[in-house]
Amino acid sequence: MPTYRLTLAYDGTDFAGWQSQRAGTARTVQAAVEDALRTLAGGARVAVAGAGRTDAGVHARGQVASIELDAAWDPPTLVRALNALLPAEVRALDAAAEADGFHARRDAVGKLYRYVLDTGPFQLPTRRRLAGHVPWTLDETAMRAAAALFVGRRDFASLASSGGSVKTTVRTVSRSELTRESSDAPFATFVYEVEADGFLRKMVRSMVGGLIAAGRGACSVAQLQAALEARDRRAWPAPAPACGLTLVRVRYRSGASGAEDGTGVR
Amino acid sequence: MPTYRLTLAYDGTDFAGWQSQRAGTARTVQAAVEDALRTLAGGARVAVAGAGRTDAGVHARGQVASIELDAAWDPPTLVRALNALLPAEVRALDAAAEADGFHARRDAVGKLYRYVLDTGPFQLPTRRRLAGHVPWTLDETAMRAAAALFVGRRDFASLASSGGSVKTTVRTVSRSELTRESSDAPFATFVYEVEADGFLRKMVRSMVGGLIAAGRGACSVAQLQAALEARDRRAWPAPAPACGLTLVRVRYRSGASGAEDGTGVR
Repeated sequence: MPTYRLTLAYDGTDFAGWQSQRAGTARTVQAAVEDALRTLAGGARVAVAGAGRTDAGVHARGQVASIELDAAWDPPTLVRALNALLPAEVRALDAAAEADGFHARRDAVGKLYRYVLDTGPFQLPTRRRLAGHVPWTLDETAMRAAAALFVGRRDFASLASSGGSVKTTVRTVSRSELTRESSDAPFATFVYEVEADGFLRKMVRSMVGGLIAAGRGACSVAQLQAALEARDRRAWPAPAPACGLTLVRVRYRSGASGAEDGTGVR
Repeated sequence: MPTYRLTLAYDGTDFAGWQSQRAGTARTVQAAVEDALRTLAGGARVAVAGAGRTDAGVHARGQVASIELDAAWDPPTLVRALNALLPAEVRALDAAAEADGFHARRDAVGKLYRYVLDTGPFQLPTRRRLAGHVPWTLDETAMRAAAALFVGRRDFASLASSGGSVKTTVRTVSRSELTRESSDAPFATFVYEVEADGFLRKMVRSMVGGLIAAGRGACSVAQLQAALEARDRRAWPAPAPACGLTLVRVRYRSGASGAEDGTGVR
């Protein structure tokens, strides 16, 4: 069957995450995309497999989904048709034909997430849906040292939320970078970018929770390192709020899908 | 009575504008601030005068309001107390004691508005509350030429929405600048900033409507100039959507209030 790779952006604020719920009551991004595709397919159900199962409130700038359609579609036409049917909170950025059997999650070899964190006594109202916020002044040097702890092939059991069905909690982080952004906000804004071959449930938000703990002096970087090595999630600080997190890009052997490198968006 | 100048930021998305309605049913920013102040004042009504009567959906980064309180407040304490009572969509950025009789609107000598406009076949979902959007590619040179039409002391009757009770439609625009922003958006984003001694109803959105018309080639700059000189609002293109507009700063003889120049936000 004709197989396509879709690159999607969404505002996760009012969604109960990517993945459709068993009960079928909560509003999910996956269901929104499936609904649009069902209309395009003349009423037939189209299964949508997403590369990342983003949580409630998490956004995407380059989520990837694989679909199989009964008929072949011209990719730019497919993008336009989807965007005419999707709610304004979800947009198809790109579509590309793929070989039979392509699967957005199984074939992904890397993902890039970004977390935006505002600091200071209050958060600007226009930023509250798109950035996390803590009321403290954070020490950038300690946060950078904490971010460096994650790089390499490690067991991230301490950063995994329970309830997953993963075989292993070992992941390889290729990039873990914190930058202080000069922004419109009255107080410092930090942007954290992390790329790995895969992520456990709430792993990025837990990473940011660790950066916050180190940055405010609630624990030392050495204590964080010990908590990471303990492989026990009770040892690790609480995860940061979902609203600051965005799935930016998914990488495949055939190349990246996402907007940051200019590919996939026309 | 102790008089204070408040600098406010808000996300206008879910408000019916700044000004309280006569019927009292619509949710306004003014009413939200008055409600918080009533609590601080032990139940007594506190009148809040805003410098700019922003429309429904318009945001603020440096709205100014004047208030009189029965008791003297330490300004930083007043800011903290207000932010503890206001909804998350409104934040007090600053408070300052003023001389008796200070009035945020009557004493204002200038205002700066900013309009953010996304272009391209679709808008990124996370930007839809904070930027306007048109599906066309816009000619930056034509837009800059249109923006230059507004500078100086002119009769802006063509750009005024009806229903106002203004004595004159003459205003002096000191700055009217368009920049093309390198942004996270997949397509071009334009930022328009305009500063004047005052603005008529929907005047900035009408200015942006004119820039869009020139930028997409719906009319020439000479035609826009003729429409401006016609002093007839039927001659002018439709106003741009509210969501892209932000009241950035209000100027007073004693200095600016707002965040852009670093004053007023601590």
